[in-house]
Amino acid sequence: MENKLDLNSPYEMDFSAIVKVQAPATVANMVCGFDILGFAVNEPYDQMQIRFQEKPGITIINDDDYNLPTDPEKNVAGAALLAMMEELPSNIGFELTIKKLIKPGSGVGSSAASSAGAVAAANRLLHHCFSKQDLVRFAMNGEKVASGVKHADNIAPCIYGGVTLIRSIFPLDIVALTAPPLFVTIVHPQIEVKTSDARSILQQKVLLKDAIKQWGNIAGLVAGLLQSDYALIGRSLEDVLIEPVRSILIPGFDQIKAQSKEAGALGGGISGSGPSIFMLSETEATAQKVAGVMHQIYNNLKLDHHTYVTTINHSGVRFVDSFITEDAAL
Amino acid sequence: MENKLDLNSPYEMDFSAIVKVQAPATVANMVCGFDILGFAVNEPYDQMQIRFQEKPGITIINDDDYNLPTDPEKNVAGAALLAMMEELPSNIGFELTIKKLIKPGSGVGSSAASSAGAVAAANRLLHHCFSKQDLVRFAMNGEKVASGVKHADNIAPCIYGGVTLIRSIFPLDIVALTAPPLFVTIVHPQIEVKTSDARSILQQKVLLKDAIKQWGNIAGLVAGLLQSDYALIGRSLEDVLIEPVRSILIPGFDQIKAQSKEAGALGGGISGSGPSIFMLSETEATAQKVAGVMHQIYNNLKLDHHTYVTTINHSGVRFVDSFITEDAAL
Repeated sequence: MENKLDLNSPYEMDFSAIVKVQAPATVANMVCGFDILGFAVNEPYDQMQIRFQEKPGITIINDDDYNLPTDPEKNVAGAALLAMMEELPSNIGFELTIKKLIKPGSGVGSSAASSAGAVAAANRLLHHCFSKQDLVRFAMNGEKVASGVKHADNIAPCIYGGVTLIRSIFPLDIVALTAPPLFVTIVHPQIEVKTSDARSILQQKVLLKDAIKQWGNIAGLVAGLLQSDYALIGRSLEDVLIEPVRSILIPGFDQIKAQSKEAGALGGGISGSGPSIFMLSETEATAQKVAGVMHQIYNNLKLDHHTYVTTINHSGVRFVDSFITEDAAL
Repeated sequence: MENKLDLNSPYEMDFSAIVKVQAPATVANMVCGFDILGFAVNEPYDQMQIRFQEKPGITIINDDDYNLPTDPEKNVAGAALLAMMEELPSNIGFELTIKKLIKPGSGVGSSAASSAGAVAAANRLLHHCFSKQDLVRFAMNGEKVASGVKHADNIAPCIYGGVTLIRSIFPLDIVALTAPPLFVTIVHPQIEVKTSDARSILQQKVLLKDAIKQWGNIAGLVAGLLQSDYALIGRSLEDVLIEPVRSILIPGFDQIKAQSKEAGALGGGISGSGPSIFMLSETEATAQKVAGVMHQIYNNLKLDHHTYVTTINHSGVRFVDSFITEDAAL
């Protein structure tokens, strides 16, 4: 915090500096860890580049085909940067180029990658004057633009890497959890599940006895991760509250889950609010087998889909060839 | 499991063997860990002694002033032993002597100490033919006699020692959690809170948003314990669901909690279903200061009470002078 810039003095910008980042996809609502546990993966990721511009404010350049807004207040990355700029001298201007490789609406933290990537990249330009927790705080403004709610369970793992616990959102309390090596299989069926729909079908009240089952599993999952106990992780990956309601929005969900576990997956569930489904495995061979299972089931359902086999990303937003000349446009 | 005795062959009992144990008090419902987290303490504890008797069946001798039933089916230790004996040859007989030092109804696992102590002692007589999980399973029958419900959050820490997670009760899944050194202050106000009353005032349904806060705290508490992060343990020791309802049954609760934290305690709450209150501290000096706070508050309320300053018991039921001659009656 002591590194923050003096709001009353103009900042001397280095216009030759360019920061390029890969902002990873993330899986929120980690089964029993609804709203509190998420993790980052190594693929897919967004590519972003930031540099100072003479004009104060933000210019957004979209280098992809998603036609996302370029008005900073309506763009998730722009909203995150605007929140950051409230704590910066007023002469600062950023030019942000975004090449989205994570499809919006896929349920693997596409908006979080944009928000988190933008503020992490800007923070590097600013010689890391903000803490990771500050970056999460700024990036949550992007989530608010995307879904109307400030939530951190994609943002936090995107910035911290690994598996992160959001113990509390107000006040913000993020705990990075160690985890043993895990392979992640993700399938993204090409259907739309609106986060607002996924939220609205949840009951506001739940049975205490179900909540107790859920927090037993959460405690087991955290212990399994920290103690590298794969069997315990597997036993704990059960969600008795959210998944039974939300999974009806995702074709083939029950079949994919059951057959993935038969193929050796430890367990898994809905990624974020869907429609993507993720499964965790102890070995790459199992994760590949699980991808085959998913592929087969969606082929049978004649549903377009993408599968990824990846690993947990322990570094979060990654700086790549920080000063680019030849490939400035990504 | 392979060690179990042949049910169809009489067991050759060693009538000279005597096993004496200390069965520790336990704190269940560890704040946010309602129904799933408990821990054992080094004081108080029950003293128990077991030996074989010629006559098949169970003889219970109460060596204290509590006038507890001696009919094995109505005595919690007897019920636990009866469950064990269903998996033993039919010629076996036990004589169990119990000296209760943990006051029944105090909320620190008095019935669990009797049940767990009895089966742990018997298991030693039987050369440890049962696993710890078996012992928990047997001892839960004692809890059923005591409160009508088979629960394991006192039994499991009493048998395993330390902090234990009951991830699931059916099927039984117990996870021993490591914990950093912690000092425990317990105050037992001399009032009666019936477990059945404490259960009946709970709502069957809770708000999802409160349940999410609770499982964020549970995840934080487990991570804090496993990572020896005292500050995280402290921040996570909050119960938004059970304590607000149950604490109204315990005079002075809010004041004790607030002033204990002011005195430096990490946090704490109701022990079991009360009326005892426990607080965790990082140092013995703080734990003693907290005892002073509790003492002062109950003195002002003119309420009889006992306070204990103790530590987490990491061994569970303890075998003491296993073969006693001179002090056979405890």
